[in-house]
Amino acid sequence: MHDIGADLRTTCFDGGFWGPRIELMRDKALRYQWEILNDRVPGAEPSGCVRNFRIAAGIEQGAYTGMVFQDSDLGKWLEAVGYALQTKPDDELERIADEVIELIERAQQPDGYLNTYYTIKEPGRRWTNIRDNHELYCAGHMMEAAVAYYEATGKRRLLDVMLRMAYHIDSVIGPEAGKKHAFPGHEEIELALVKMYRVTGDAVLLKLADYFLRARGLADNYFICEHPVDAAKTASGAFDGRYWQNHKPVVDQEALVGHAVRALYMATGMAEVAAQTGASDLFGACAKLFDDLVGKRMYITGGVGSNAWGEAFSTDYDLPSDRAYAETCASIALCFFARALLRTRPEGRFADAMERALYNTCLAGVALDGEHFFYVNPLEVWPQVVRDRRDAAHVLAIRPGWFSCACCPPNLVRLLLSLGKYAYGAQGSSIYCHLYINGRATLKLPDSTTDLSSVTLSVETDYPYGDTIVIRPSAGTYALMLRIPEWSAKRYSITVNQREVDARAENGYACIKREFADGDTIRLKLDLSPRRTYANPCLRDANGKVAVERGPLVYCLEEADNGEGLNRKILPDNVELVAVDMPDKLGGIVGITAKGLCELPGSTLYGGSRPELAPCELGFIPYYTWANRGENEMRVWVRSQER
Amino acid sequence: MHDIGADLRTTCFDGGFWGPRIELMRDKALRYQWEILNDRVPGAEPSGCVRNFRIAAGIEQGAYTGMVFQDSDLGKWLEAVGYALQTKPDDELERIADEVIELIERAQQPDGYLNTYYTIKEPGRRWTNIRDNHELYCAGHMMEAAVAYYEATGKRRLLDVMLRMAYHIDSVIGPEAGKKHAFPGHEEIELALVKMYRVTGDAVLLKLADYFLRARGLADNYFICEHPVDAAKTASGAFDGRYWQNHKPVVDQEALVGHAVRALYMATGMAEVAAQTGASDLFGACAKLFDDLVGKRMYITGGVGSNAWGEAFSTDYDLPSDRAYAETCASIALCFFARALLRTRPEGRFADAMERALYNTCLAGVALDGEHFFYVNPLEVWPQVVRDRRDAAHVLAIRPGWFSCACCPPNLVRLLLSLGKYAYGAQGSSIYCHLYINGRATLKLPDSTTDLSSVTLSVETDYPYGDTIVIRPSAGTYALMLRIPEWSAKRYSITVNQREVDARAENGYACIKREFADGDTIRLKLDLSPRRTYANPCLRDANGKVAVERGPLVYCLEEADNGEGLNRKILPDNVELVAVDMPDKLGGIVGITAKGLCELPGSTLYGGSRPELAPCELGFIPYYTWANRGENEMRVWVRSQER
Repeated sequence: MHDIGADLRTTCFDGGFWGPRIELMRDKALRYQWEILNDRVPGAEPSGCVRNFRIAAGIEQGAYTGMVFQDSDLGKWLEAVGYALQTKPDDELERIADEVIELIERAQQPDGYLNTYYTIKEPGRRWTNIRDNHELYCAGHMMEAAVAYYEATGKRRLLDVMLRMAYHIDSVIGPEAGKKHAFPGHEEIELALVKMYRVTGDAVLLKLADYFLRARGLADNYFICEHPVDAAKTASGAFDGRYWQNHKPVVDQEALVGHAVRALYMATGMAEVAAQTGASDLFGACAKLFDDLVGKRMYITGGVGSNAWGEAFSTDYDLPSDRAYAETCASIALCFFARALLRTRPEGRFADAMERALYNTCLAGVALDGEHFFYVNPLEVWPQVVRDRRDAAHVLAIRPGWFSCACCPPNLVRLLLSLGKYAYGAQGSSIYCHLYINGRATLKLPDSTTDLSSVTLSVETDYPYGDTIVIRPSAGTYALMLRIPEWSAKRYSITVNQREVDARAENGYACIKREFADGDTIRLKLDLSPRRTYANPCLRDANGKVAVERGPLVYCLEEADNGEGLNRKILPDNVELVAVDMPDKLGGIVGITAKGLCELPGSTLYGGSRPELAPCELGFIPYYTWANRGENEMRVWVRSQER
Repeated sequence: MHDIGADLRTTCFDGGFWGPRIELMRDKALRYQWEILNDRVPGAEPSGCVRNFRIAAGIEQGAYTGMVFQDSDLGKWLEAVGYALQTKPDDELERIADEVIELIERAQQPDGYLNTYYTIKEPGRRWTNIRDNHELYCAGHMMEAAVAYYEATGKRRLLDVMLRMAYHIDSVIGPEAGKKHAFPGHEEIELALVKMYRVTGDAVLLKLADYFLRARGLADNYFICEHPVDAAKTASGAFDGRYWQNHKPVVDQEALVGHAVRALYMATGMAEVAAQTGASDLFGACAKLFDDLVGKRMYITGGVGSNAWGEAFSTDYDLPSDRAYAETCASIALCFFARALLRTRPEGRFADAMERALYNTCLAGVALDGEHFFYVNPLEVWPQVVRDRRDAAHVLAIRPGWFSCACCPPNLVRLLLSLGKYAYGAQGSSIYCHLYINGRATLKLPDSTTDLSSVTLSVETDYPYGDTIVIRPSAGTYALMLRIPEWSAKRYSITVNQREVDARAENGYACIKREFADGDTIRLKLDLSPRRTYANPCLRDANGKVAVERGPLVYCLEEADNGEGLNRKILPDNVELVAVDMPDKLGGIVGITAKGLCELPGSTLYGGSRPELAPCELGFIPYYTWANRGENEMRVWVRSQER
């Protein structure tokens, strides 16, 4: 297995593109979200999350607040705290976390059960609606938190709480007679159990994860027994379990369907279990799901799940720009999935998709101020139409401060605070660079043939805005596998100590294998020329259109730079795309300008001649920076013209 | 005033394009719908309409069935019967109508009130929810029926019933102290009262129509008193009455807003009252509404009201093809509106829009079999997406037999059976030909300066498929005003007795003024070359696309002729559009073929090069014939290419 991820405790990502962003997440977003979880932000949607735990712990009286999965917000937040503490000690944060972990422990029931919704609201009804009511999902998130916090502090309290919960679950659910043959309605616990297994080595956890995956989608499965009315609908074809990925055994599924986050958490679970157990049926199936996803169902921004109805996947190539759902959580989940696939096969296709999702949809999920968030990530917005048409009612033209269903903001913080776990990998005596992030990281070499047990990389780069990545590796004999993104595959260069080396990329990685000495300097130069990207013509919304990209960044037009009527702007094929350094704009960007054309509004609605054209200047900004200057039009796919 | 419409009793539209269609409506659709109204069609949505009248009349016991406006289905059907009987006697139909009129009379309450919903279901609650519950709307439709049936048969029974109802309404509602200062939530009665006025000369009716229009949209108006909760919302801006056209006095409204059929019935009422009273404020306002509509808010098919949410108008230029609402009733209403405008000003712009709506959206509203109907008329359908996405759930890919809300089918039948009332007009000693329909019609000359009191026109034409209209007018001195559609304004010819005449069109009509002798033959030749139409670039969904038209017909591509992936088909600007006679296809059409291009599906979802192109044959069919060969893709706006 490919061991993914730097040890965050020995990782320091400062400066460059990510340093200030990680700082923003750690110093601002994390604290803002703690205030939110405690209902102390005036005007924001009430959370009630911490209060629910106090009520369940018997400390406070009151009614349950929020969604049935409200507990998971605290789980994700605590996980993010774990990552924050791994990279930088923070006594106050740790004190807050210790206190809330004590609260969680007090909310746990004597038999290990932990879920404030059922404890407060339906105490006698535990495990009666496993399909819809998220007990296993919330447990999964708290397990992830337990692992992260344990890794950060060595404190086992939350880990022990969640081990008790895992054993409680194992006593209620499983393949054995007398247990419920159930599996979660919202996948998540599968991948979390693998994480717990990795720190505890407890085989029960891995077995349970595998069971949850393989119990899904069988004929006459648990959901059908639990929901006989829906099951009756199955017969008529109106309901076939696709929303819950329950239409087929997971190993037989050929496309991700239904609720996008669930589907991607399932796929991540499959890849994680496969990486741990070597189950080739699980890996083969989820690799196929990945290829189908990036080949037919992924927005250019790495957004996935285009259908607002059911927050779901739609049909192949149905990726509308203006009614996109493309939930932030789904793209975060795509990062999880890609990382899990990389464990078994370190191939560039997985890292390419991960990077695409990360730099575009995920990063667009949070405002430059760190305190406003998108749940839905459209590729085109016309604010007037969003207001007047209800079929785009899920689309917001500006990021709000919080949501009644607040899954995305804490999910994003935990992702961005653990980037070290995505940037690197190690296999045999090879070190993989999947993402290029300014800073230092130490990687363990899992089964090196040499005596070398770890490698430290010092990386200097302005990537994704700068094209050069300077890596200073620690001494030793090993291979450094440098990811060559697909968009740079035809044009990149690598020098070692200023001498060009011929390192042809295979499966997306160029290999520099040698005995590294202290002071060695590797310089990777990628092709950051702005480029035009066209979509497969099956993707209707991009027909006759072009997207502008530079490096991993997808660009867009915004009304603030281009005036209204972005649908009338045309980018001809033959004009140059000019990258322009704009250090003072939108937190510092490289913008792209081009001499475009603009169709002039006509005097009648229909007529016998093409609209008249006038020249115009087009100004593109990175997609992740959109909607930071008030409500305005935006579009990624811009009309193209061949001449 | 311009007297619109031939006397249907002296009109005979047989042969040509319309003859068989009118026959289908009269002999099949009308009878089919009678069975529907009596719940005798297995598998169709239950109507309960006639049964409601039996229950209200005390003949049968039972509960009310259907929408609150179910009565109107019978009103529209009876009106259509009136038109059918005007053109062709039918003893059985007349007997059925007489019987049901007797039933209606028995359902009328002693004070003149008539509405089966309130009589059966909420007897004590009449006139308590005038905004939502359609009492005035249903009355309007029955008044229209009464006029048509009286004109057909000379029988006054239904007319008298509805006069009593009108007087009852006048006793309850009006500007006078002690009356409710109300107006209908769904406009319709305004235009119906004008019709009743025209046959009875009773000034009370015209005054009431005028009142209903002018009471609307005033500050502190009736709806606000009737619905104080909504009114409170008004203050917050969430509710401003636009759905009911109640946001401004009608004479101040500058765009049609809210529910499209209501808005267009309102506008029709304004134009009808203006034509009758000469009120220039009403006419000026509704002419402005018309220009705004055709300039910014009308599909090329004459579909109007693009927003499924509220069956409403959206914002300017927001005319999505795949999520179009474009209710059949709304385009029928556009025909009413245009006809009403023509009364005051016989200008081609009004007739052009009427013809566009008639030949495209209205006609697409009914299947070639006369027994299946569209409510929603999209300009693009991809059946898989309609099924998988709920934002297009209102779009059907195939016409069903009936609807639970069945406003459209009987509305269409009454329109098509009264085409004579749209085709001709008379003003002073001029006869106007607004539409060209094969057959005969007699027109009264309202205030001829000569002794001539009427003119008979015999018209021979295959229009809209044939380009020549041969007119044989009866003898006398008068002007024949021949409409020159905008699309033929630059190329048409007129001969009188085979000699070309120079009749330049003014305001859309060419004038042939002379002393006509028996046997005179006028031959109008229009330009039916297939043509490309482009949209104003503000119309996003048509950006980079072209529509194919021929005469008044809009064409479309269907999968049945072109294979799947219509979004990948391209019609280059420089290829010839070839009109091909196809007498055996889709009831007999002129199809259009062209050498097009097809983008080939790529191997990846995104890439650096444009899709590859292959030549293909494109086959266009008239839009009104789509969806007659099973569920398949369709699109009107086809991608264009300049070269």
